[in-house]
Amino acid sequence: MKTLKTQVAIIGAGPSGLLLGQLLHNAGIDTLILERQTPDYVLARIRAGVLEQGMVELLRKAGAGQRMDAEGLVHHGFDLSLDGRQVHIDLHALTGGKTVMVYGQTEVTRDLMAARQVAGATTFYGAENVVPHGMKTAEPFVTFEKDGQSYRLDCDYIAGCDGFHGVARQSIPAENLKIFERVYPFGWLGILADTPPVHDELVYARHQRGFALCSMRSSTRTRYYLQVPAGEKVEQWSDQRFWDELKSRLPVELAETLITGPSIEKSIAPLRSFVVEPMQYGRMFLVGDAAHIVPPTGAKGLNLAASDVSTLFEILLKVYREDRLDLLEKYSQICLRRVWKAERFSWWMTSMLHRFDDHDGFSQRIAESELAYFVDSEAGRKTIAENYVGLPYEPIE
Amino acid sequence: MKTLKTQVAIIGAGPSGLLLGQLLHNAGIDTLILERQTPDYVLARIRAGVLEQGMVELLRKAGAGQRMDAEGLVHHGFDLSLDGRQVHIDLHALTGGKTVMVYGQTEVTRDLMAARQVAGATTFYGAENVVPHGMKTAEPFVTFEKDGQSYRLDCDYIAGCDGFHGVARQSIPAENLKIFERVYPFGWLGILADTPPVHDELVYARHQRGFALCSMRSSTRTRYYLQVPAGEKVEQWSDQRFWDELKSRLPVELAETLITGPSIEKSIAPLRSFVVEPMQYGRMFLVGDAAHIVPPTGAKGLNLAASDVSTLFEILLKVYREDRLDLLEKYSQICLRRVWKAERFSWWMTSMLHRFDDHDGFSQRIAESELAYFVDSEAGRKTIAENYVGLPYEPIE
Repeated sequence: MKTLKTQVAIIGAGPSGLLLGQLLHNAGIDTLILERQTPDYVLARIRAGVLEQGMVELLRKAGAGQRMDAEGLVHHGFDLSLDGRQVHIDLHALTGGKTVMVYGQTEVTRDLMAARQVAGATTFYGAENVVPHGMKTAEPFVTFEKDGQSYRLDCDYIAGCDGFHGVARQSIPAENLKIFERVYPFGWLGILADTPPVHDELVYARHQRGFALCSMRSSTRTRYYLQVPAGEKVEQWSDQRFWDELKSRLPVELAETLITGPSIEKSIAPLRSFVVEPMQYGRMFLVGDAAHIVPPTGAKGLNLAASDVSTLFEILLKVYREDRLDLLEKYSQICLRRVWKAERFSWWMTSMLHRFDDHDGFSQRIAESELAYFVDSEAGRKTIAENYVGLPYEPIE
Repeated sequence: MKTLKTQVAIIGAGPSGLLLGQLLHNAGIDTLILERQTPDYVLARIRAGVLEQGMVELLRKAGAGQRMDAEGLVHHGFDLSLDGRQVHIDLHALTGGKTVMVYGQTEVTRDLMAARQVAGATTFYGAENVVPHGMKTAEPFVTFEKDGQSYRLDCDYIAGCDGFHGVARQSIPAENLKIFERVYPFGWLGILADTPPVHDELVYARHQRGFALCSMRSSTRTRYYLQVPAGEKVEQWSDQRFWDELKSRLPVELAETLITGPSIEKSIAPLRSFVVEPMQYGRMFLVGDAAHIVPPTGAKGLNLAASDVSTLFEILLKVYREDRLDLLEKYSQICLRRVWKAERFSWWMTSMLHRFDDHDGFSQRIAESELAYFVDSEAGRKTIAENYVGLPYEPIE
C-alpha cells in the first residue's frame, strides 16, 4: 500500500471534478483527482450544451474560458413552439442583459483537462475500487488501486464529483440520507449530426405527438431530441424515421428548412428528477450529479454542478485562508436552496412541454393554461427567462 | 299556460343574473329573471368577499356601486404565512396601482336586488320547474310554474346564471359537453364572527397542520377558514376548537392578538375545480358557477362570474345594436381563455398552500421550492399579484 497526500481528494474527473480542481489549484490548494475511466471515455460522453452565465464566469475564473469565448455561441433567447404557436423568450431583454452560452460539455471537459495538464496537477485515470473512508473524522482518506498497485490517499476533505452511479453517495450509510425522486414515463432520443442548425436559437417544441428540441453544439453541428416512450430502443429509430418524426413536431416553416444528414451519435436517455439530502457526510461533499439529477428540459444539469462547485470552492477557500470551519456544515443547505429551485424549473419545463398519456383532461388543460398564462404575461416570461439563464449564486459569508 | 315575452331570459337571481340583468336593463334591453328561491334565501348564502378591480368597475357601470364604494375596504395587498415565514404581496406596487375590494357577496347581491327594484325590472322569485326549450332554434323559450300557474317565457336568448346545481347546464344534452374536474381531499371549515380582523389585510397561511385563511367582511366582521379533511362534520367543531386550531396555524404574533368571539355562521365547503366546455348551447349561455367552479383559494369564483357577465353583456349589446350575430358563437371561447387562467391560478394557490397527505416527498419539496421561488423573485411575486387582482377582460371586437 502506497500512501499519498493531498488537501482535497476529488473523486471523478468529469467537468465538476476538473472545475473544482482547477479553482482550488489556482488558489494554491492542493488537489488530487481519481477517475475510474480513461480520458477518452470521459470525453466520449455527449451531454449538455447550454451554459448559464454563472458557469461561464466560473470557467473564466478557473482560467479555462479562452476557447469557449472564441468558439462558443452566445444566445440572447430561445423559442417555444406551443402546439403550433411560436413564442420568443428574449432572455437578454427579460433579465436585464443576461445570456447563455452554447458550448458542449465535451468541450468544457477538454478545456479543463488541458488546463489541469498545464497546471501540472495530478489526475489518476483508471483508478479502480475507489473507496472513501473516515469521512466523519478529522482524517479522512481514500483507498484505490491502479495498475495492480494499492494506494491510500490522505486528505483534509473529499469531494464526490463522480456522478449519479458513483461511489461517493453510495459510501454514505443509507440511514443518513433522504431520497427524493420522480421518474418520467418517457425518455429523450437524441442525435448528433454535422448539419447546420435549423434555427439560430434553440427551439423547444410542445406537440401532440410529443416534445422535440432543436439544439446545437456549433454553427455546423446540431443536436436534436425527440420524446419517446420509456423502454424504446434506439435500434427502432433509423435516421430517416428520426428526421421524419422531428419534422412532424416542428412548425411548418422550420420543418421545411430543416437540413438532415447522417447521425454521428444516437442514444436514448431516461428522464429523472432526483435529490439526496443532505449533500454532505462529515468531511465528504457531494457535487453535481452525485447528489441530484434533473431532466434535461431547461438545461440545468451541468449548470447545477457548477454552482455546487462554486459553493464548495468558496467555502474551502474561507476554510483554508480564514479558518472558517463553521462554513463546512453549511455546504448542503446553501446548495440545496438553489438545487431545489432548479429541480422545480426542470420539472416544470418537463411537465409543461411533454405529452403525458396518463394525465386526465383537467391536468392537460391546466398545463395548457399555465403555458398560455406564462407566455402571455411579461412577468410570466420573466420567470422563465431568469430561471433559464440561471438564478444567482448565493454569496458565502 | 300564460305566455310572457322578453329579450333575454335570465335563469337565476344570484349576483351573476342580477348583474347581467342590470347592465342589459340600463342599455335598454329587456330582461326577465327566474329564481327558484325567495330573496331571503338568496341573501342568506355566505360566499366570497374579495372583488377584483374589473368586477368593481362592472358594478359601478351597472349603477350598483355606491354602497360598495362607501363601505367596502380597498386592500393594497395581502400576506402569506409560509410555514412561519411571513411574506407581503404588495398588489398595488406589483401591478402598477391595482387593488382589490373587500365587500361581501351578500352585500353585492343586496345592492343589485335594490337596483333592479328601482329600475322596475321583473324578477319571478319562487319560480318552479324552470325548463329552457328550443335553445338550438331562433325562438327559444323557458317554461316554469309559480303559485300554481304555468308560464311560457318567449325570448331571444337565455342566460343560465343558476349555479353549479342549476337546470341550465343540465338541460344541455350530455354528448355536447366535455367535463373537466378535480376534487380535492379536503374542505374549508369557515366561520363568520362579529370580531375585529386580526390583521388589516388577508392572511393566507400554509402550515404543517393545514391551510388557514384570515379574511373579513368589514372592520367589525371576520371570516376565518381552516383546511379540514373531506367528510369532516361541522358538529365536530365547537367555536373553542376552531379558535384553538386557527391560532396553532398562524404566526405567533397574529395568534397572540387574535380576538375570538361566538360564531354567527359555521359551515364546511368542499373544494372542487370544474369546467364545462363549451359554455353555450345554441342561444343559451352558461354564466359563472353554472359553467365552472374554482376552489376558493385565490378568491376567483364570483369574479370569474363577473367576467362572464361582462363578456355576455358586451356581445349582446353588439348583437342588438350592431347586428353582430357573428359574436354569439364566440362567447364560450372568449370566456374559456380567462376561465382556464383563473382555474389554473386557483388550482395553483390551492396546491401550494394546502397540506396534501397523499403527496410523496418529491411533490412536497417541489411545492415548497415553487413557493420559495415565487415569493423570492420579483417576477414571481408579480405573477401572483396580477392574477390575484384579476387578469384583464378581453375586449369584444
